[in-house]
Parts: sequence; C-alpha cells; structure tokens
Amino acid sequence: MKTLAHLTFAGLLAAAPAMADPAPVLDPEIRAQAEALMAAGLADDVGLEFTESLTTEIGPRLAGSDAEWRARQWAMIKLKDLNFQQAYIESFNIPYWERVTETASVVGDNPQPLLITALGGSTSTAKGGIDAEIVRFTSLADLKSAPADSLKGKIAFIDEPMVRSQDGSGYGAAVAKRSGCAAAAASAGAEACLIRSVGTDSHRLPHAGGMSREGALGVLPAAALAAPDADQLARLLQRGPVKVHLDIQARTSASAASGNVIAEVEGTSLKDEIVLIGCHLDSWDLGTGAIDDAAGCGIVVAAARLIQALPAKPKRTIRVVLYGSEEVGLFGGKAYAAAHADDLGKHVLAAESDFGAGRIWRLRTGFGEGALPYAEAMQDVLAPLGIIPGNNTATGGSDIGVLGAAGVPIASPDQDGTDYFDLHHTADDTFDKIDPDAFRQNVAAYAALTYLAAETGWDFRKPVEPETIDN
Amino acid sequence: MKTLAHLTFAGLLAAAPAMADPAPVLDPEIRAQAEALMAAGLADDVGLEFTESLTTEIGPRLAGSDAEWRARQWAMIKLKDLNFQQAYIESFNIPYWERVTETASVVGDNPQPLLITALGGSTSTAKGGIDAEIVRFTSLADLKSAPADSLKGKIAFIDEPMVRSQDGSGYGAAVAKRSGCAAAAASAGAEACLIRSVGTDSHRLPHAGGMSREGALGVLPAAALAAPDADQLARLLQRGPVKVHLDIQARTSASAASGNVIAEVEGTSLKDEIVLIGCHLDSWDLGTGAIDDAAGCGIVVAAARLIQALPAKPKRTIRVVLYGSEEVGLFGGKAYAAAHADDLGKHVLAAESDFGAGRIWRLRTGFGEGALPYAEAMQDVLAPLGIIPGNNTATGGSDIGVLGAAGVPIASPDQDGTDYFDLHHTADDTFDKIDPDAFRQNVAAYAALTYLAAETGWDFRKPVEPETIDN
Repeated sequence: MKTLAHLTFAGLLAAAPAMADPAPVLDPEIRAQAEALMAAGLADDVGLEFTESLTTEIGPRLAGSDAEWRARQWAMIKLKDLNFQQAYIESFNIPYWERVTETASVVGDNPQPLLITALGGSTSTAKGGIDAEIVRFTSLADLKSAPADSLKGKIAFIDEPMVRSQDGSGYGAAVAKRSGCAAAAASAGAEACLIRSVGTDSHRLPHAGGMSREGALGVLPAAALAAPDADQLARLLQRGPVKVHLDIQARTSASAASGNVIAEVEGTSLKDEIVLIGCHLDSWDLGTGAIDDAAGCGIVVAAARLIQALPAKPKRTIRVVLYGSEEVGLFGGKAYAAAHADDLGKHVLAAESDFGAGRIWRLRTGFGEGALPYAEAMQDVLAPLGIIPGNNTATGGSDIGVLGAAGVPIASPDQDGTDYFDLHHTADDTFDKIDPDAFRQNVAAYAALTYLAAETGWDFRKPVEPETIDN
Repeated sequence: MKTLAHLTFAGLLAAAPAMADPAPVLDPEIRAQAEALMAAGLADDVGLEFTESLTTEIGPRLAGSDAEWRARQWAMIKLKDLNFQQAYIESFNIPYWERVTETASVVGDNPQPLLITALGGSTSTAKGGIDAEIVRFTSLADLKSAPADSLKGKIAFIDEPMVRSQDGSGYGAAVAKRSGCAAAAASAGAEACLIRSVGTDSHRLPHAGGMSREGALGVLPAAALAAPDADQLARLLQRGPVKVHLDIQARTSASAASGNVIAEVEGTSLKDEIVLIGCHLDSWDLGTGAIDDAAGCGIVVAAARLIQALPAKPKRTIRVVLYGSEEVGLFGGKAYAAAHADDLGKHVLAAESDFGAGRIWRLRTGFGEGALPYAEAMQDVLAPLGIIPGNNTATGGSDIGVLGAAGVPIASPDQDGTDYFDLHHTADDTFDKIDPDAFRQNVAAYAALTYLAAETGWDFRKPVEPETIDN
C-alpha cells in the first residue's frame, strides 16, 4: 500500500511540469503479480542450481572449444527440464585461439618465476621462448609515445593499475592497455608485450582477456602479469635492467563451432513482440566462469522460469538468450543481431546480466524519452529490493549493445561490481564466490522487470511528445 | 609516568600473596632505553627494506636450493652493511626434494583442470601420470579407518577444512592430514593422496608444505588442492564416481648444502650469555616467502640493529639467527642446537618471529616459575604497543622449540595470525601482503624485549622460591 501511494505521488510529480498525460498508473493486478514474482525470486533456488551445475559439470568453456559445445548440450537439457516451451541453438562459427603453454621468469642475477597468462589472440614466441630486457611504461599512452624502433629487442611492460569502482567504470580505463599493448609495442619495434593484469586484486592470479573485441590475432606475444608480479618487476627495475624469459605457445584455427542457446516463454496477445533477457554461456578458460557469466545465465533463466510457471502467460514473448563466444569477440551478440536483423523492430526491450552476481543497486534505462514514465514505474516496483533509479543513458552490455545500437530499448539493472574485477577472468572465478542472497535479489529484479515489460504492453521506444500549451 | 605507576602497582599485587621479595622494579634508565627503542622501532624502515630486498632480489628460496645459497650470501652482505660486529654462516647438509611438474585434472564426463601443488616429499607418479577414481574422506581419522586394500587402484582425498584462529591453533588440527595422508592412504592400498589445502582462504592457490617434519620422502605421490578445487571434487562426487588424472614429477638428492646465517651484537659485562632472536631464511618455492618468513627476519634484524646502534651496548650478547631449511624438516634449528649443545646453558632467552607480519597482541613466556616477575615487567613495558600478557606455557616455534626443550627460556611475542593461513605456503605470499605499521610494531616489541633481556641480567630460568612463613 505504501509503495502504491509512493508511485502515485511520484507519477503526479513527473507529469506536472509538462502538463501532459498523467503518468501511466501501473495496473494494480500487474503490479501485484510483479511483487509476487519478486518474493518468489528472493526464495529461488533454480538459478543457483543452474549456475552450480554449469560451473561444476562443464567448468571452463572457452568460446569455440569442445567444452563450449558441451555447455550448449547441457543448457538444452536443462532448459527442457525447466519446461520452457521452446529451446533451440542458433549456430555460428568463429576464429579460434587457445593457450597451449605460457611461462615467464626473471633471468640474470635475480632469477625467479613470474605468474602470467597469455592474452587472447597472443601470437606464439619462438619455440623455447625469448629472453629480452623489459621497458616499463606507466600507461598505454606512455608506450604509444615511444619512438619507432626504440624497443627493438625489448619487451614492453605496461604497469598501469586499475581503479576500483562500483559501476565498473574503472574497467574501461584499464582495459585499453590490454587491447592496445601489442600493437603499440610492435610499432616501437618490441618483441612482446606484458601488462599488469586488468584487475583490482593483489593475488598471484593473472587476469586473462582478449586483445581485441573482434577476436583477431594480435601482432605480438602478449601476456598479463599477476599484480604482485608486476610490482616485483617494478621493484627490480629500480635496481637496474631486468631481463625476462617469455615462452608462449598458442594454437589457432580459422573456424570453430559456437552458438547461442535460446529458450522462450511464448506470449499470448502480443506474442510476436519480444522481451529479450540475456547472458553468455562461454567463459574464459582459467576459472569455471561462475561470476562471468554462469551467474548471469542462472539469473535470467530463473527469472524467466518463474514467469513460465505462472498460470497465465504474459502478453509478449520472453526470449532468454544464452550467448556463445562473448569473451573472444562478442561473436554471439553479433550473430544474434544478424540472424534477427529483420525482426529487431519487434524486440521491445533487451536486458543482459553480465557483471557478476553482486546485488543490483540501480536500474538505468535506454528508452525513448516518451517512455520515461515506464522507467519510473519499473524503478518504483523494484525499489523494495534496494534498487535506486538511474538515468536513461543505458546502451546495453557486450552482447545486447548491438541491439541497443539498432534501436532496441535497453534496461540495465546495474549490479554492484566493487569486487567483480578481483575475480574477473582469473582462475578464481569459481562457484564459491557467489553470495546466494545477492544472487536471489537479482532473480527477483529480473523476474519483475521482465514480467512488467511483457505484460504491460508498454512501448519503450515511445518518443517524447510535443509539449502542448493548455492556456 | 602512567605506565611506571601501573608497573609499581602490578608489582606490589604480584608480590603480595607470597609475602616474598618485592617484585623487581625495572631500573628506570633501562626502562627508558627500552621505551626509546620502541619509539625507534615504530619509525623503523630498516626491517621493511631488509624484507623487501630479500623477497625482491632472491624471491623464492627453497631449502637446499641455489636460491637458498644466494639468500645466505645476500644476508651476509646485508648484515655487514648494517654494521653487525659479527656475521657468519654455520653450514649443514640436508636431503633435498623439489617439484618438477605437477598437474591434475578431472577426466571422464566432466573434464576440467584442477589446481594442485605437490607436497614436500611427494614421490613421482608414473611418467605421464595416473588415472584413478578418488575416494573422499572428511578427516585423516576417517581415512585411517579405511580397511587395508580398500583403496586399491584409488586416490585418497581428504577434504577437511581448517578453522580460522588468531593464535594459529587451527593449523595444528588441520596439518595432521598433510603429514599423515600419504602413509594412511598407502596403508589402505591407495595409489596417491590428495588433500584440501591446509589454509583458510578460498583462492585457486594451493598451499604447499612438507609431509613430514623430518624432511623424509613420503610413501606416495601427494598433493594439495586449492580450496575451490576441493569443493569442486566434492560437488562432482555428489553426482557419481570421479576419476582424476594426476601427474607429479619430483627430483630428490641425498645431500644439499644449507646453513644458518648468524649475526651478533656483542655484549659487555655478560658477553658470554646469549639472547637469541631468530627467524628462517628459507621459504617454500611458490611465493617469495614474504610473510613466511622474510618478515620475521626483517623484524629481528631491525630490532637487533636498533640495539647495535645504541651508544652503549647491553651486557649480554644478542645473537640473531636466520635459520636455513626450516620448511623442509626443521633442519636449521636442529643443526644450531647440535652445534651449540655445549653452550645451551649460556642461552638465557630465545624468541622467534615466524608467524607472519601481523601485530603482536600478546606476550607469552616459558620461564622458570621464579622468573615470572620478569615476564610481568616485560609485559608491562610492551603494553603501550597494544600487547596483553599471556601465560607461561610458551615452548618456542619451529626453530627454537629444540632450544626450549633443552631448557632455554622462551619469550613468545604472539602475532595476530587471523589471516596468516590465507597466504601461508602459497604463491600469494608476497611483499605486498605486509602491513608496514603492523610490521613496525613488531620491530618495536622485539627491540624492547631483546634489550630488556640483554641489559637487565635477569635469570629467566629462576625456579620458584620456596614459600617462607613469616609468622
């Protein structure tokens, strides 16, 4: 009751300045159903079991690998067991890269091992490895300013730390060095490139990650050092020149099978309209991909399953997409958008869970300006979960960004990622790191959000209405 | 002034029941000097620099390895640079074991890698490894109760967690499985033994450690799993039989060089009496041995150096012992005790820093009952550092325990080890894990304690005096 009163009051306030239509009052029955779904989500075990099963039975599932293939078959069985009306695979092929061996050590007067992991797309060193002096740069820009040929016979080392942040914005700044190190190092004539891991922890667990967002093969051998190993190199460099032995052997193939696994809750009166909720099924190979992104898949699957189990299905179709090959080039998202290019106008909303398993603290949107009252109504329903309203600048994550760019409205339930980059792309990304209560709060939010989008029939593309002058 | 008043009051209280001699009042000049040393310790950088240099320039230094040899030469130079009057090496030989390769994976329907590290003394598997079903036990006692031959062709897996504790008492309970797994597994006919790491963290960083305290070669291949990998095996076992591929190759030799590095602050009027403060110079091979035990060496060296730099040297000789080969069989401690067997009566006190770099929170002693007033006086001086009095049951750590057993009085400044076993014997034991303020508090405490022991001339062996009846 209190919440309903609050909505009405907020609705009046929002409507007042433009003197336009009154804010849409959410149908009390729809609201009550959304609230019941939230309560069910907070008690849900299906999502956690889905996540536990994927991370335990499949474990690491690198895009294009046999393990990713097994994950698709596993997902099909799970989705059928969960009584989704439809489950199918949309296949595509990707260029394939995998690590074979990766070792590094300091050689010379202070010999000692270094803990590294090759970056996705790294080329191989000469067999048996290379020995070269390292040259330290404090940022990618710093390396880019190195004169041509100034690093001949050397290894570039970018020792740039990452800023911890709740919303993950530290990642954007830090990841540039991962994408750009090899190319910039090559421009200066270097033999290879090392970076301080893109991460916020201080464990001897290097963070993997691709060099490019297109899955392209890089131009040099490139690897990430665990943070303490980057510290160690910096300390050794204070004492004099440091030579590193680096041996990376990688294997590639031009084409490997991948695919998106899709399940649906078929709509009723508006069944050709799609509410898409996504995650990605593939993971980096060092951990078991629990927070990145088995948890996201568990969350969206569990949310859809709660709606699927309702006595009356909502008007619109809910499509759960477990994307393949996100990590290595966003191939799954691109493949989906290409396969459904003619149909994107029927996608009324897309959301994606791919930022761990922390609590959702904010709901942002990327709606037409005329649809902002719908955002406010959704935010109001989710408020009891400890979720505050965000702005309307959401553009979608790595899998649905391509949909957002094509005009599909986006909802972004923002998870607290303060600790996400302690684990991201490391061997430490394992099931034990998931907080069950935070996970269930996500299921609750996704269930309510998805239901509201599917049942209300709201048009999230709605442009802003011309201001009318009443007097 | 407040502290002095407190001491006098405490002294009176302690003396009252027996109506014996009044408690020794610490000479105000000695107390003032100890307090000045504490202040200097809290501002000390020498100990941190020593620790940084050892962990950076030498890094891992397995007992008996070339790296441990380099660490001894490094220490000799450092100790001379710090102006110790004497620095020398007492050499001894040890049986040598080192890991060459260690890999494990789940095979069968759920193939995935496991992160392990071989236990010190592990035998090698057949070349190329073995494949065997694992059998889970929840404790060493559980495994010991397995009938003979019941594990034929199997791998025993002890999945016993460790209890976190401030004083490290959880370790004693947990380490039994590391010492005993191979022998118990062999008794039941097993091929190999796996244990959940002896540790309190949940990172993919397995904890190394010896199987025996005598450095003896074990009877089977044996390895520790990172905690998340032990969890994974337990989850997989809930689904059915689990087969593991285990490949451990180790190298041994009958005799390798090791040694204790010793530095002294020569005493004056009682210079043949020894106050020994120790640590160990060797480390396990996965990390750089920062908290175990470069920090301990930095602490005792810095404490002794503060005393060494005083205008007037204390009465007794201070001997700093950087033990070798602690980790693999306590060889350094035994070698010292053997080399100084005729001289142990002249060792008036021994203390050892080998429990990380956390704050000292308590001072325990192992004194003669008649010397308890000296313990109270020491505890009173250290109280401003946030150190509370402990009991008189201290028996010494792994290097000086042999001295304690031979009757040498022991002081045990107990560090807070709540987080110690998150890092202990893992790759994560690196310099960045040391809190400089906590480290300096240790230097302050050791400097004061050592000075009091060296300058007062107190007899810490003093037996309890027979009670006299006055009336």
